[in-house]
Amino acid sequence: MCQLLGMNSNVPTDICFSFEGFCARGGKTDEHRDGWGIAFFEDLGCRIFLDDNPSINSPIAQLVKQYPIKSKNVIAHIRKATQGEIGLENCHPFQRELWGNYWVFAHNGNLDNFEPNLRGIYQTVGTTDSEKAFCLLLETLRQSFPNGKPTLLELYPILKTITQNLSRYGIFNYLLSNGEYLFAHCSTKLHYLVRQAPFAAAHLIDEDVTVDFRALTKKNDQVAIIATLPLTDNEIWTSISQEQLLVFQNGNLIM
Amino acid sequence: MCQLLGMNSNVPTDICFSFEGFCARGGKTDEHRDGWGIAFFEDLGCRIFLDDNPSINSPIAQLVKQYPIKSKNVIAHIRKATQGEIGLENCHPFQRELWGNYWVFAHNGNLDNFEPNLRGIYQTVGTTDSEKAFCLLLETLRQSFPNGKPTLLELYPILKTITQNLSRYGIFNYLLSNGEYLFAHCSTKLHYLVRQAPFAAAHLIDEDVTVDFRALTKKNDQVAIIATLPLTDNEIWTSISQEQLLVFQNGNLIM
Repeated sequence: MCQLLGMNSNVPTDICFSFEGFCARGGKTDEHRDGWGIAFFEDLGCRIFLDDNPSINSPIAQLVKQYPIKSKNVIAHIRKATQGEIGLENCHPFQRELWGNYWVFAHNGNLDNFEPNLRGIYQTVGTTDSEKAFCLLLETLRQSFPNGKPTLLELYPILKTITQNLSRYGIFNYLLSNGEYLFAHCSTKLHYLVRQAPFAAAHLIDEDVTVDFRALTKKNDQVAIIATLPLTDNEIWTSISQEQLLVFQNGNLIM
Repeated sequence: MCQLLGMNSNVPTDICFSFEGFCARGGKTDEHRDGWGIAFFEDLGCRIFLDDNPSINSPIAQLVKQYPIKSKNVIAHIRKATQGEIGLENCHPFQRELWGNYWVFAHNGNLDNFEPNLRGIYQTVGTTDSEKAFCLLLETLRQSFPNGKPTLLELYPILKTITQNLSRYGIFNYLLSNGEYLFAHCSTKLHYLVRQAPFAAAHLIDEDVTVDFRALTKKNDQVAIIATLPLTDNEIWTSISQEQLLVFQNGNLIM
């Protein structure tokens, strides 16, 4: 299976610290060696770095660890292949356009015997269950709102229903964002924390690295971090309940 | 206006040498400072590096210059904004999915008073004439082949017609690829060459760098390079005629 990392904040924030610890799980402190990827929204734009090399050996991951790209919505993924070959086309996050926004999706889990009839607008390029689920999810959202982009209150129950339907096929932890909201669904394992004033120092589990956020933040900054497993050993992470679909906006848990 | 660089080859090939010269035009030897991007197909997968910083100052461009990513289809672009703000969402190449393949597009030129009615499947995220043209192009291709992916012989005349229609709005040099073919349309300015045995040394115009391809190639290798302006000063570049739509596959000019 894979691991997920997400960030949602009220000011553009870099993810170098969290990504450093997360990245170590891609072949150093854990076994997720089958590729990795990270998506950064910057306003409406989105840049995605993908690599089918283990993150721990990847020159692109080195760049991402060192180059502080500032974003309000980030989704990262390290892969341990369950379905689909090792290859760039099967690396998460996946991206498609819907209602004039890019949507980005990464999945941790495994959907068994899941063969949706994707004859509509969104088709898969690779061979993972994850990309199939993403395409079906966007297809259903699009069909549910033929007049265009809904409000969050309109969208949420539909997304929840699609998610419940997909969860019947197996483990379906995921992160999804359109650059405004970050949706986090827990099927079996997903944790989060919100960093806000008073800020403190945080220490990674996977690398002996400490960052003192007091020196890096302003008092109104608010940053939510969502991860399969906690990344730091001196902060309190909340375990998301099974079958919960959370929504983060501007670093706040809003639903 | 902008500059384009494309590569199409029969074996996965890195573009470090050509990109080095091209990159210098993003703020050093030329004025294209408003962002840049490069897309690499690897089989069905595609990775795109985008940056709204000038390529000459970009840490991501440094990585791309030094890290030999091997690909059979590459499209790169450096931007001098004509329409649309400077921002990540307006950096080329743009990517969408069609018929289960990623399609990638970059444009050099300017389309005046071009306001297509994009109410279908493909909508723009940014505000450039280029992304509008790409969306309209894919929308028209999709509608023209409701039963799915056509052959190249079926696709070519339709693409040619769409291209002619779009060219009425202004300058429309472009590169387009689905990972198999590289389409190159010349409206005003576009050049190409095919490197094949016997290989020789090549020297960049924009940087004092020489590469001896004899040491780097096998005798059956074939690599087409397409660029707005020639990149080397000791090779023969062919100027593509106005209104020509060329197709490259496996490093060969096939149409």
